[in-house]
Amino acid sequence: MILGQNQYGKAENRVVRIVRDGATHHIKDLNVSVSLSGDMDEVHLSGSNANVLTTDATKNTVFAFAKEHGIASAEQFGIHLARHFVTSRQSITTARIRVEEYAWERIETPGPKRHSFVRTNQETRTAQITYAGGPDGWQIISGLKDLVVMNSTDSEFRGYVKDRYTTLPETADRILATEVHARWRHSGTDGAEPEPGHWDHSYAQVREHLLHAFAETYSLSLQQTLYQMGARVIDKCPGIDEIRLSLPNKHHFLADLEPFGLKNDNEVYFAADRPYGLIEATILRDGAEAGIPADLTNL
Amino acid sequence: MILGQNQYGKAENRVVRIVRDGATHHIKDLNVSVSLSGDMDEVHLSGSNANVLTTDATKNTVFAFAKEHGIASAEQFGIHLARHFVTSRQSITTARIRVEEYAWERIETPGPKRHSFVRTNQETRTAQITYAGGPDGWQIISGLKDLVVMNSTDSEFRGYVKDRYTTLPETADRILATEVHARWRHSGTDGAEPEPGHWDHSYAQVREHLLHAFAETYSLSLQQTLYQMGARVIDKCPGIDEIRLSLPNKHHFLADLEPFGLKNDNEVYFAADRPYGLIEATILRDGAEAGIPADLTNL
Amino acid sequence: MILGQNQYGKAENRVVRIVRDGATHHIKDLNVSVSLSGDMDEVHLSGSNANVLTTDATKNTVFAFAKEHGIASAEQFGIHLARHFVTSRQSITTARIRVEEYAWERIETPGPKRHSFVRTNQETRTAQITYAGGPDGWQIISGLKDLVVMNSTDSEFRGYVKDRYTTLPETADRILATEVHARWRHSGTDGAEPEPGHWDHSYAQVREHLLHAFAETYSLSLQQTLYQMGARVIDKCPGIDEIRLSLPNKHHFLADLEPFGLKNDNEVYFAADRPYGLIEATILRDGAEAGIPADLTNL
Amino acid sequence: MILGQNQYGKAENRVVRIVRDGATHHIKDLNVSVSLSGDMDEVHLSGSNANVLTTDATKNTVFAFAKEHGIASAEQFGIHLARHFVTSRQSITTARIRVEEYAWERIETPGPKRHSFVRTNQETRTAQITYAGGPDGWQIISGLKDLVVMNSTDSEFRGYVKDRYTTLPETADRILATEVHARWRHSGTDGAEPEPGHWDHSYAQVREHLLHAFAETYSLSLQQTLYQMGARVIDKCPGIDEIRLSLPNKHHFLADLEPFGLKNDNEVYFAADRPYGLIEATILRDGAEAGIPADLTNL
Repeated sequence: MILGQNQYGKAENRVVRIVRDGATHHIKDLNVSVSLSGDMDEVHLSGSNANVLTTDATKNTVFAFAKEHGIASAEQFGIHLARHFVTSRQSITTARIRVEEYAWERIETPGPKRHSFVRTNQETRTAQITYAGGPDGWQIISGLKDLVVMNSTDSEFRGYVKDRYTTLPETADRILATEVHARWRHSGTDGAEPEPGHWDHSYAQVREHLLHAFAETYSLSLQQTLYQMGARVIDKCPGIDEIRLSLPNKHHFLADLEPFGLKNDNEVYFAADRPYGLIEATILRDGAEAGIPADLTNL
Repeated sequence: MILGQNQYGKAENRVVRIVRDGATHHIKDLNVSVSLSGDMDEVHLSGSNANVLTTDATKNTVFAFAKEHGIASAEQFGIHLARHFVTSRQSITTARIRVEEYAWERIETPGPKRHSFVRTNQETRTAQITYAGGPDGWQIISGLKDLVVMNSTDSEFRGYVKDRYTTLPETADRILATEVHARWRHSGTDGAEPEPGHWDHSYAQVREHLLHAFAETYSLSLQQTLYQMGARVIDKCPGIDEIRLSLPNKHHFLADLEPFGLKNDNEVYFAADRPYGLIEATILRDGAEAGIPADLTNL
Repeated sequence: MILGQNQYGKAENRVVRIVRDGATHHIKDLNVSVSLSGDMDEVHLSGSNANVLTTDATKNTVFAFAKEHGIASAEQFGIHLARHFVTSRQSITTARIRVEEYAWERIETPGPKRHSFVRTNQETRTAQITYAGGPDGWQIISGLKDLVVMNSTDSEFRGYVKDRYTTLPETADRILATEVHARWRHSGTDGAEPEPGHWDHSYAQVREHLLHAFAETYSLSLQQTLYQMGARVIDKCPGIDEIRLSLPNKHHFLADLEPFGLKNDNEVYFAADRPYGLIEATILRDGAEAGIPADLTNL
Repeated sequence: MILGQNQYGKAENRVVRIVRDGATHHIKDLNVSVSLSGDMDEVHLSGSNANVLTTDATKNTVFAFAKEHGIASAEQFGIHLARHFVTSRQSITTARIRVEEYAWERIETPGPKRHSFVRTNQETRTAQITYAGGPDGWQIISGLKDLVVMNSTDSEFRGYVKDRYTTLPETADRILATEVHARWRHSGTDGAEPEPGHWDHSYAQVREHLLHAFAETYSLSLQQTLYQMGARVIDKCPGIDEIRLSLPNKHHFLADLEPFGLKNDNEVYFAADRPYGLIEATILRDGAEAGIPADLTNL
């Protein structure tokens, strides 16, 4: 019998970091999961914990690093943590840090209050930082999920295969709605600290390109829209070599109002839950090798 | 044996309504639940459906009314539906319509695209319209839920009872965070159509008052903050007679960094899930009678 | 302005209690929510906590009582807690304890292992104990939720109202499936300790009556099935005066296979999520007064 | 720019199949997700749907096959579907079918009722069938999730690394609880129909081995318990070459009752939600190659 791939760590450490700039406060709100692998045969085979850094200690490290290094961005925080785990213990050869970041905006009041916030909830920003040691051992994947978008027209669906089980009528005008789940991989990452604001700026740009491409594409299929979204990012963002999109087709079915003597001119829709179409694809820069797992749904 | 209070209907009808203003589209996205009661003894006792309007027909009515009457607001749509059910069938004496509304904003693009939207997700707007017949039979409760807010300072907690089981240390500076669940009851509702935009304007005002009162209150307890939020609404909004707030205390515990030789000067917090404090209260205008159920958590 | 009904406490305290009987262990796994009310005007109006027992202390009390009094049953544990809060502090006039209980069964192995368990997950048992002081101040409501049941035949639906919006065809044979949410109120409760095993025995009986009545009723409507389930409990359990059932109609629609040249003789169904019918009613013993809130969905 | 790995299909088709054996009914309740890949460049690049079998047709196929072929087991049903998609259209080179199966048991009544069921809810059975064409193109992975287990003693945790961030005290007696997520890969699968009951029998055996190994292992670490569980399956089940286990450590912390003058002799625990340890590993038969993705959390 052989012990295959294995990893362990503390998942879902919810850390909130406040930074005071005089009376003005700034907030970072993260959910951090640590996963380590390395020379871990003994703990599996004999139960010896001699090489085991406890998951509790990895949790403590997350909170201590929030103080010691601050949280400049999800990516930068993950880089600090991953480097620490791999360089501090010989038995740990790879560290993977996953981060979800929740966005807050200030509550605007007439007065000068600068420490009140409301969660925006629009999307969750994600990051996965993996470090396997050495100067080339870095992989940084940024992403987002739960970004729900809709085009209320400029979407058709026609010309598809008709087999024995095909009953769907073709349509020249439908609602196209999806919940964007995107992950993109940065090129040339070496764990060095880029200029301040780099990761947040990059995130904002990718997010805007995704939204614009979604809005601007006259859609013949969700696959085509997906490709346009991914290609826009690869085209406009030189530091990104690969993007993978997972787009559930949030079906909106035209309500049948004919039995009531009413004409439904693409006005009233039933928003369905299940089943749903699910369209997934990776778009790569020419020459880049795929690095984002095809089935990574929990990042 | 006696048949007591009973009600039935179709829950969670997800209706999306598109309105075209030339090339510019407008969207309403609702989750509508219908609940009817009246002369329903027979269906319970003998299984006779002679008085039963099917839940399927109530669903159809929701979609048909979205076309016939449009959706001016959650409240107005509910009023149309409730009136219809009570006035169209003698056996139905009371109709209760519950609505959740999901907000969307336009995707801003350089071009003239006017039919692309992104869900804001910040809070869910709610409404409950109950009609029991007659001119005085109306009750309109508006509300919101899932609005997550935080003050990163200006909150203390001291001077409380110390019994045998009290171990909590007093604090002069803590994070105060909660997820606002609010319901407010409108006075003088007669089911008449108010001026266009009335309900949306009212909603926006209440929401702003809640946020401002939360931000502007130096908090000695979450109860005090709750009262300030509710009182602000009653004070500023003459058409509202009652408000009930349910505020879970989303605890943020200061991470203990002393074992690592680090000082945590209210900078690094652990955001806890369970257990949580839960503070609930109703604030009434002088002379008003309570009408919002104390335990109505699913509205 | 008036402060209306208010309550506070610590929600969702997850307490697990192990009892050792030699090498054989027994387990109780509860989720306990405490809610207190009384003389609480000051904390709302001025922020004075002088009458406030902290929610943290109520949490500590739950864990301390699990040790001091043990957990004979959800109901008995709740009675201990409620009596304590009301009798120990004058400012607290009412205590409400809500409990969810998760069931475990032993893992059967060839050897003598007696401390290994697997969660059954079938339903969640609930209890709500309210004490308002004095010998008559008790209300005990037991219940269950998440119990999913199905009859694959012996259900029809015919003879209902046909209005303009009715399109549903009548059926003489359909699947009837629901997720039982039941709460029943015990009569003559005075907080005294009944014989050991009383509450568990009572729970097992009600559960069995609900399942039997569901299985044995040839259904003309879900309302009729609901009534038969509730009436069976009132009929067979002398100590129960009232039961309220909330039954979502988990629709199973016959898949339309005609386009593929296939006959679907009640064999293949699509299990739908939303919308769903929702049928709710209370059944009372003759002479009993209703005490279970009609809209108590979170118990 | 390059289009990388891509796939599409209809997810979460909820199909229920009733089989009548005289008055006795049998039920299969599945959630089926179809994912296809192949010659799909055009639909991404130009929006041409000429090679696209609609996701709606894949849904129809699931329901039609439930009638035409029945549902002998999750695995057998998936094999039928996967073979159909790959062999019926040249443009589809790989089909992946994922199935969740929900278990029901009969409601036992005194009478002869044979068509009433209650969902067991204990765990969800899973299967993933992938077919890439040809006699060797099959991969069958069975699994389960949501199986929650606990040992209330016979677990210790000692002798681990103590770094700067380690504060966890060693313990000689703790609760060990986890929610088993397991997937195992069958060897020598060629898509042929094995003897009736093969897949159900195999599932029952693996499930029992997992439970027994969990119960019988005196645990020095969750990794050791995981390995024992996986090794037991590989050892006892000749047809299984690989198993991957993902075990969240559902922490139960000893409640600190000292402030109340109470001794907690491993009797009262706080069941924590987040963060949690997460232990994951694959165990392989000698000579087998790993085929289960390390990060496949949604199977």
